[in-house]
Amino acid sequence: MPEAAAPRDPGSSALLTDLYQLTMLLAYREQRMNDTAVFEFFVRKLPQGRNFLIAAGLEQVLDFLEKLRFAEDELDWLRDQRRFPRDFVDELRRLRFTGDIHAMPEGTIFFPHEPILRVTAPLPEAQLVETRIINILQLQTIVASKAARCVLTAPDKLLVDFGLRRAHGAEAGLLAARAAYLAGFGGTATVLAGQRFGIPLYGTMAHSFIQAHSDESLAFEHFARAHPENTVLLIDTYDTEAGAAKVVALARRLKQEGIVIQAVRLDSGDLGAHARKVRRILDDGGVPEIRIFASGGLDERILHDLLACGAPIDGFGIGTSLVTSEDAPALDCAYKLQEYAGLPRRKRSEGKATWPGRKQVYRTYDRAGGLGGDVITLETDAYPGEPLLEPVMTAGRRVAPTPPLDQIRGRTIAGMGKLPPSLRGLERAEPLPVAISSQIKALAAEADRISLSTPPT
Amino acid sequence: MPEAAAPRDPGSSALLTDLYQLTMLLAYREQRMNDTAVFEFFVRKLPQGRNFLIAAGLEQVLDFLEKLRFAEDELDWLRDQRRFPRDFVDELRRLRFTGDIHAMPEGTIFFPHEPILRVTAPLPEAQLVETRIINILQLQTIVASKAARCVLTAPDKLLVDFGLRRAHGAEAGLLAARAAYLAGFGGTATVLAGQRFGIPLYGTMAHSFIQAHSDESLAFEHFARAHPENTVLLIDTYDTEAGAAKVVALARRLKQEGIVIQAVRLDSGDLGAHARKVRRILDDGGVPEIRIFASGGLDERILHDLLACGAPIDGFGIGTSLVTSEDAPALDCAYKLQEYAGLPRRKRSEGKATWPGRKQVYRTYDRAGGLGGDVITLETDAYPGEPLLEPVMTAGRRVAPTPPLDQIRGRTIAGMGKLPPSLRGLERAEPLPVAISSQIKALAAEADRISLSTPPT
Repeated sequence: MPEAAAPRDPGSSALLTDLYQLTMLLAYREQRMNDTAVFEFFVRKLPQGRNFLIAAGLEQVLDFLEKLRFAEDELDWLRDQRRFPRDFVDELRRLRFTGDIHAMPEGTIFFPHEPILRVTAPLPEAQLVETRIINILQLQTIVASKAARCVLTAPDKLLVDFGLRRAHGAEAGLLAARAAYLAGFGGTATVLAGQRFGIPLYGTMAHSFIQAHSDESLAFEHFARAHPENTVLLIDTYDTEAGAAKVVALARRLKQEGIVIQAVRLDSGDLGAHARKVRRILDDGGVPEIRIFASGGLDERILHDLLACGAPIDGFGIGTSLVTSEDAPALDCAYKLQEYAGLPRRKRSEGKATWPGRKQVYRTYDRAGGLGGDVITLETDAYPGEPLLEPVMTAGRRVAPTPPLDQIRGRTIAGMGKLPPSLRGLERAEPLPVAISSQIKALAAEADRISLSTPPT
Repeated sequence: MPEAAAPRDPGSSALLTDLYQLTMLLAYREQRMNDTAVFEFFVRKLPQGRNFLIAAGLEQVLDFLEKLRFAEDELDWLRDQRRFPRDFVDELRRLRFTGDIHAMPEGTIFFPHEPILRVTAPLPEAQLVETRIINILQLQTIVASKAARCVLTAPDKLLVDFGLRRAHGAEAGLLAARAAYLAGFGGTATVLAGQRFGIPLYGTMAHSFIQAHSDESLAFEHFARAHPENTVLLIDTYDTEAGAAKVVALARRLKQEGIVIQAVRLDSGDLGAHARKVRRILDDGGVPEIRIFASGGLDERILHDLLACGAPIDGFGIGTSLVTSEDAPALDCAYKLQEYAGLPRRKRSEGKATWPGRKQVYRTYDRAGGLGGDVITLETDAYPGEPLLEPVMTAGRRVAPTPPLDQIRGRTIAGMGKLPPSLRGLERAEPLPVAISSQIKALAAEADRISLSTPPT
């Protein structure tokens, strides 16, 4: 077993793509189709129950594009497959991403049909990167959008991502922590997200810690002594209220030594009912400063119900529902060719027709600063309002350093404050007006003429 | 930007864990709690609509455990956080996984409460690996279990994983391809899964390839000439039946040059209706050898309906629903302490109580070789039937080389053949009998006495 070499990140492999990208690259090469292509990434429709989406993942897309190259062992493997001509594989060695990227900044609220990312590059380059771009943007966008619903539901509570174990693999766990923080969560339990992104870390204890001791009170005390400044005790392993009573006795004793218990965690049963009983036990026991943290199968709807009935809970650990976006684990999203060799392009497949051309989205606000509506038009048009897409990469290099994650987070939270009240709720509301400009519609008619095909039925 | 060093795989980082694992490790250390712990991974209940699960992911768990160590930069970062004492971080440098693993072989059919993996190791080691073990096993198990439903629905069709773009990140895409193949899929479009696991690769073309040409027929011809032995043409970009007619004309012309078109792909609209029309166009056009492949929002229920109405489709590309296990994107699963320092342990949290002790699952078959029922009992008991858990790692090293993926796949398919007909269907059926032995129940009572706590309410 070779232990010296660190395993390569699958996310950095140029082979993390669909086979058809390579087969198309070969055909493009044989036809010398190397002109400039424009692809856009957009969402076709909102997932069930959602009123808006939060753009996220741009940073990882730019990183992927800057580093894109085939490794020698990957090229060797491709040659060995004998699926592609040798000289084609040899050319892949030199392939780099040399194009331009326009995108909405991370944390921007967006709606269906609005491109959040545009790729302008020689056709083979723009084609090859399709799969991984969708893969990155979808993941963080669904998690950030789910997280935003939790944040809007419980704006004054500490929300912590507890989802790594139920995330779909390593990268999903790591990037879900990032997406949730970007959308307003207070932190994560995932240590690697602390190291890589500087996200605040939170942690308590597991049931196994209690179980490994023969006495629950002793387990609490051992933990508190090991973490005198940061003790959160899990009290539901055997009996929640009995656990709370043990915490009271321990807290009063440890206080004399200067050890403070910060909080207790509830993880099962009727969290609202337990929280009320535990709050009373703590208050009556003379330790009202101990806070209550809850976890266990939470999502934004359960948060809403707990808060609506006044459950005295100070913070929530949210895992599975957040990191898998459990009620909507995928986006109906696409990365589509909108222009090639200077001519507009569109597909007209049933139910999946696209709008051609290089687009811009203009956003207008009402007098109170609230979101008014969007217009999707061509980049070359001028509309009133704030243009949402901006240049972020030119000739394969970022145009500016990545903004700090905390800055993105602040902008996201500010953006959510501009949502009309109806769109902040958990139920589907009347959508924000998003218009397709007449210029785009005219270009679609032109694209249909160019494709020389029968009109759509 | 340092471009020389390949980015480290987040899945190989010891920091890809919950903060509480490290806080518990510190407390264990201060109390010298280093005795042998036994944890088991199991599923609490079947996801909606599922009748069984397929164990998958063991190979990646064993790889993770063999390679587990903290890297120097990770230790440096931990020290800089000042969250943990310096000597504790120094000790983490020497941490390796030295324990034993018992597990069901990958591809084994299993049911709720049956452990599919058992960890026996010094408490801190067994504790630390919890998060990543759940993360790995859940992902591949949900995808393999979803894939199995597709395979049982369309056993005679070519099924191909098309899901990378909608998978939750890089590792999810890569391992979903593995899990689907393991459960009987014919292959994947994910090139990296071909390189890493030897899974057969399939690919066609994207709409962008057609759109980049000003003429659909010309696009078809360019593709066929670039891939004379492996041409699948996507015919729904503008008008499906018009596309089929163009394929007929092209196929007849190219046949004279020895170029064969293998198949057409449908990706939108009423796939059954289009398939019937396209089949007739191809047959009437004298190219009955061209097969029909379908994709676009498919899942096992749509497969079932298409086959039930006799749609002439030869193969299916299945993406989003498969790789996200869209109708059940998470498992209610757990990794729980069952024994510590020679004594049985259990939690009794409401709705989440566990059975203590080191367990074995015995499976019996009826006379025709069909699955009869399971008994979950203690490892030390002897029951009739086939024991499902076997030793796979001793003192931190695999006991045998990993079986080839094709062998696992063959065993999985054979196992599905032993399912009672009711459990092969897509609707929830009467569950297979799974008994908890009286020995386990007696041990649970003993564990409750040991925990010295009030009885469960």
